[in-house]
Amino acid sequence: MKITLIGAGNVGYHLGKRLFKKGINIRQVYSRQLINAQFLARKIKAVPVSKFSAIDSKSDLYIIAVKDDAIETVAKVLSRHKGMKRKLIVHTSGAASSEILAKYFLNFGIFYPLQSFSKTRKIRFSNIPICVHASHSKGLKKLNNLGNLISNRVATINDKERAILHVAAVIVNNFTNHLFHLGQHITNEEQLEFDLLKPLIEETVLKIAKYSPLEMQTGPARRNDEKTIKKHLKYLKKFPKYQHLYTLLTKSIQDAHRR
Amino acid sequence: MKITLIGAGNVGYHLGKRLFKKGINIRQVYSRQLINAQFLARKIKAVPVSKFSAIDSKSDLYIIAVKDDAIETVAKVLSRHKGMKRKLIVHTSGAASSEILAKYFLNFGIFYPLQSFSKTRKIRFSNIPICVHASHSKGLKKLNNLGNLISNRVATINDKERAILHVAAVIVNNFTNHLFHLGQHITNEEQLEFDLLKPLIEETVLKIAKYSPLEMQTGPARRNDEKTIKKHLKYLKKFPKYQHLYTLLTKSIQDAHRR
Repeated sequence: MKITLIGAGNVGYHLGKRLFKKGINIRQVYSRQLINAQFLARKIKAVPVSKFSAIDSKSDLYIIAVKDDAIETVAKVLSRHKGMKRKLIVHTSGAASSEILAKYFLNFGIFYPLQSFSKTRKIRFSNIPICVHASHSKGLKKLNNLGNLISNRVATINDKERAILHVAAVIVNNFTNHLFHLGQHITNEEQLEFDLLKPLIEETVLKIAKYSPLEMQTGPARRNDEKTIKKHLKYLKKFPKYQHLYTLLTKSIQDAHRR
Repeated sequence: MKITLIGAGNVGYHLGKRLFKKGINIRQVYSRQLINAQFLARKIKAVPVSKFSAIDSKSDLYIIAVKDDAIETVAKVLSRHKGMKRKLIVHTSGAASSEILAKYFLNFGIFYPLQSFSKTRKIRFSNIPICVHASHSKGLKKLNNLGNLISNRVATINDKERAILHVAAVIVNNFTNHLFHLGQHITNEEQLEFDLLKPLIEETVLKIAKYSPLEMQTGPARRNDEKTIKKHLKYLKKFPKYQHLYTLLTKSIQDAHRR
């Protein structure tokens, strides 16, 4: 299978490297910035391009790994290339619908690695769930095979399901990370070490490998320990913006355990 | 050093086992329920007791590892025992003040392992921060030595600082765990696998070992991607209780990055 990779950002970078490592031929890498295309292309023996017109139609699969807002533009321009109409085109976004591609292509799909990537961090790709979806069964089979090559965990997920997973992902990833920031902000302001909290954070996460978070819930909210809750809210007058969050999350825990 | 351990709950259990493993002589283990005292005592070659009157004054250190509400009762009863007034008495709570002990004892302190314990999970004790505090420098030295025996990370933390750490701990541990529950609740209700989100959760946490959560923040709130935020809120009409949380956490992320 010959692949053209459009986008050399966080997702394109990690995905490209992983596919290459598994022996997949990535022919071209596109990035608006030639230097970014070159940086990745060098690592995966591909040809770097920074002009849409340079993207040829000799690949079997085109992976669009650009920002959500840019997917449609890329699809539109690409669809005008000769011989492209019947190619298999996928994007890698968790939030964008596959319908964006339906407007311009006959065979389209999704190849969404459910993970948060940053170039500075290596990642164990084999555990990353790859969510695939395709307009036709032939395309789906191809995407499944490709997914299984780079990961142990490939799931067929339609647009609606992917949108739901994305909401849940924002909650467990982005919101969780923000709570860590709150912890760091408070400890920093008070000249305490945030590091003191890290083993606790690790344990919170390690637990969910085996136990349901509902069962594992502890703390003043879970115990309905109003005395401690009041004490904490009083302290948080120092951080008025966090008071409301504390109250709401406390209520939400209490609700969940009243159910 | 000879120790009496009062309480065989989650903290008492793990702390007792760890101290024993490091060669410390735990003479007596108290629990209201004899069977609980016996269960732990057998593992650490201690004498199990379930009556306060059976607690003798032959130890150097008395560790009170009971629920916050029960600390004062235990301290009061214990202080009436002959020869106990001048013993070193500590409790292991993150939230309770050391002043509870000051009412009844001359030498008192805190020995607080900053971790969330459950009997069903083994724990790597060497990384757990032990927060110590004592009424006198002699006692503090003893607690420091004891802490260093079982952990790489001993910090002298006064009552005020410990109360602050406890607020932050609730935020990064209890609230985070609740967000995981939200993710699980949503995926379960939608017949999707919560497991699909676990690698993402792991990565969220692994990142903070090296990077600050503020720098690592991603997602629609961080990008001010109002289109996606609206889409998510629309979807969350299905879970009205979570809508408000989503809005508030989104605003809080936006605030943090406007600073």
